[in-house]
Amino acid sequence: MAFGWIDEQAELRRRAGLVRTLRPRPADSPLLDLAGNDYLGLARHPEVAEAAARAARTWGGGATGSRLVTGSTELHQELERELAGFCGFEAALVFSSGYAANLAAVTALAPHGSLIVSDAGNHASLIDGCRLARGTTQVVAHADPDAVRKALGAHDGPAIAVSDTVFSVDGDAAPLAALAGACRRHGAGLVVDDAHGLGVLGDGGRGAPHAAGPAGADDVVVTVTLSKSLGSQGGAVLGPARVIDHMVNAARTFIFDTGLAPAAAGAALAALRILRREPERAARVRAVASALHARLTAAGLAAVRPDAAVVSVRAPSPEGAVRWAADCRAAGLSVGCFRPPSVPDGVSRLRLTARADLSGEQIERAVQVIGETRP
Amino acid sequence: MAFGWIDEQAELRRRAGLVRTLRPRPADSPLLDLAGNDYLGLARHPEVAEAAARAARTWGGGATGSRLVTGSTELHQELERELAGFCGFEAALVFSSGYAANLAAVTALAPHGSLIVSDAGNHASLIDGCRLARGTTQVVAHADPDAVRKALGAHDGPAIAVSDTVFSVDGDAAPLAALAGACRRHGAGLVVDDAHGLGVLGDGGRGAPHAAGPAGADDVVVTVTLSKSLGSQGGAVLGPARVIDHMVNAARTFIFDTGLAPAAAGAALAALRILRREPERAARVRAVASALHARLTAAGLAAVRPDAAVVSVRAPSPEGAVRWAADCRAAGLSVGCFRPPSVPDGVSRLRLTARADLSGEQIERAVQVIGETRP
Ligand SMILES: Cc1ncc(COP(=O)(O)O)c(C=O)c1O
Ligand SMILES: Cc1ncc(COP(=O)(O)O)c(C=O)c1O
Repeated sequence: MAFGWIDEQAELRRRAGLVRTLRPRPADSPLLDLAGNDYLGLARHPEVAEAAARAARTWGGGATGSRLVTGSTELHQELERELAGFCGFEAALVFSSGYAANLAAVTALAPHGSLIVSDAGNHASLIDGCRLARGTTQVVAHADPDAVRKALGAHDGPAIAVSDTVFSVDGDAAPLAALAGACRRHGAGLVVDDAHGLGVLGDGGRGAPHAAGPAGADDVVVTVTLSKSLGSQGGAVLGPARVIDHMVNAARTFIFDTGLAPAAAGAALAALRILRREPERAARVRAVASALHARLTAAGLAAVRPDAAVVSVRAPSPEGAVRWAADCRAAGLSVGCFRPPSVPDGVSRLRLTARADLSGEQIERAVQVIGETRP
Repeated sequence: MAFGWIDEQAELRRRAGLVRTLRPRPADSPLLDLAGNDYLGLARHPEVAEAAARAARTWGGGATGSRLVTGSTELHQELERELAGFCGFEAALVFSSGYAANLAAVTALAPHGSLIVSDAGNHASLIDGCRLARGTTQVVAHADPDAVRKALGAHDGPAIAVSDTVFSVDGDAAPLAALAGACRRHGAGLVVDDAHGLGVLGDGGRGAPHAAGPAGADDVVVTVTLSKSLGSQGGAVLGPARVIDHMVNAARTFIFDTGLAPAAAGAALAALRILRREPERAARVRAVASALHARLTAAGLAAVRPDAAVVSVRAPSPEGAVRWAADCRAAGLSVGCFRPPSVPDGVSRLRLTARADLSGEQIERAVQVIGETRP
């Protein structure tokens, strides 16, 4: 029978303790949230919600078509201009998701015959971009600029190096300056995904490429998501104007996808403006992450030192991680639980996220619950 | 220099008359819109805009995480239930875009060793799904159930046939009943993209699979988009509950993507409810498409008979199509202009879309402008 193999896979998953189920939340959840990626606490900021509402009223519920047909509004353009300016790039292009932006950046910048040097810890969307691209992918060791240098040196013709700036599972940062140097030396492009850097790292949250130097260079392309620090949905590619023009003409997830909904564009733009007005939010989320890590480590837990807002804590097993997260939840704390196949190294962990609006008291409560429920 | 090859490609595009540029529209565009995919005229319906606004206020600007972490709200669940029920399926899963839903459906249902039989006219997102999937893809002639039958018959092991229900460029319908029969006979699954069928075809707009019979069968999976008839953004996979559970566990564009923004979910749900209440909108958009086709043909234009809401008109060349669309625009009419590489057969055309809320007078005006500006 069609799809019969699905039942076998489901049974294997069940036995391995790897079944995933959805748990829809109410609007007024009483849980303390250390699981979401709303790093700056802006998703429910009244100005952000109001901007989404206003955009829906002004422009409608959807963009009504591809950005190349009817789907580009003046609101998209405004967002693109402000985002590019904020992050220090010449131009920006907004997509319906960060996932789509990553697919676009990698596929459009890796033509037939080119080389893609991809970090082993990269996000699924970059990996899918590599798989879709016409170029050849070489996966290199995690956060290893020497390996990137070697791979680029052995190739003739167009090449790019592709990396997250902050890796989503462990929250560690990529060696951006060294990567940019390696690329420059070999005439290769650098494509980095700043999904977890925007709003958190760099001067006033301008992102990891701004902090490390390569932002705005003519051989650097950055992707961001509007769904984390900016509390909305969508993604963007930032880079030189000629690269952005190329995206408009060549990126399939731009050409063949409906434009980002006006409400999402409006929400992201409002969040960006709050961040510019209140740059201390970026410093605050980093301080919260450091405090979380320090307190967890003091409690004897195996927490990874955070380079941005993600704090990862090792769990003994997939089942152990699931039980731990469930026990936290029962005690009023929502934490992320990452298990295979969502972790590159097969190690299960709790994934905690810092938020700029967490109080010292909330941090204490979170650490206490995590400590008391440890398996 | 990095990205140097981009300038060469840009120059080639310029010479071939294939340069694409964005034209952001104002909120109060005076153009008559026959280019967007807002088939039922719901994107700017006050109830839809109000539902988006309310959802943003209630739930925030974004979903804050993957649907598996913090990104599932009760609003997503409500939308999934109503969408599945309306289209006649056991379950549904909502994605951030129709593109992401298509990537998910094809990749998650075509494991290593399986066969994917894909129509030559399929949408880019289905094609990218085939490219990403572990299975082997065999592209078959457009709308040819015999070719599908032959391909399935020559393969042992899991297989799916993949097709648009209504092809986005020419607006022609797939031979759904024959495809379903061929799949059933060979124990293969049928995966169809009803992006242009939902809200237009079938009883009250329940979609092409509902009209043709296979909706709800245990070997049929349908994808839809929330960005066309439902005037919002997002996509969904509809199918048996076990297939949907499988998606939750296996589809990378579900697991590793932020959930659909609440405003978009709210807008789509409101649009769906309007469609249920006013099923005549579906009949009306089909009547408008027929009228457009009849009047264009009477005016001597090469229009393709529409099976749904898309009416395609052949143009003599890419440059001719661009000029034609520009002349229409100058005369107050917005039409789509599809050129290589966005057309599978290399033929450039104007792409007109019917809307349920177009008046007879507007249809006349559109036909007149298109006739007067023909190259
Ligand atoms: C590093 C990284 N890149 C890209 C994405 C995808 O962005 P989005 O969810 O906005 O599609 C995510 C997570 O969602 C991510 O963690
Ligand atoms: C046939 C078809 N499938 C899928 C899509 C993608 O849907 P979305 O734009 O909602 O991502 C489109 C167009 O946008 C389409 O025409």
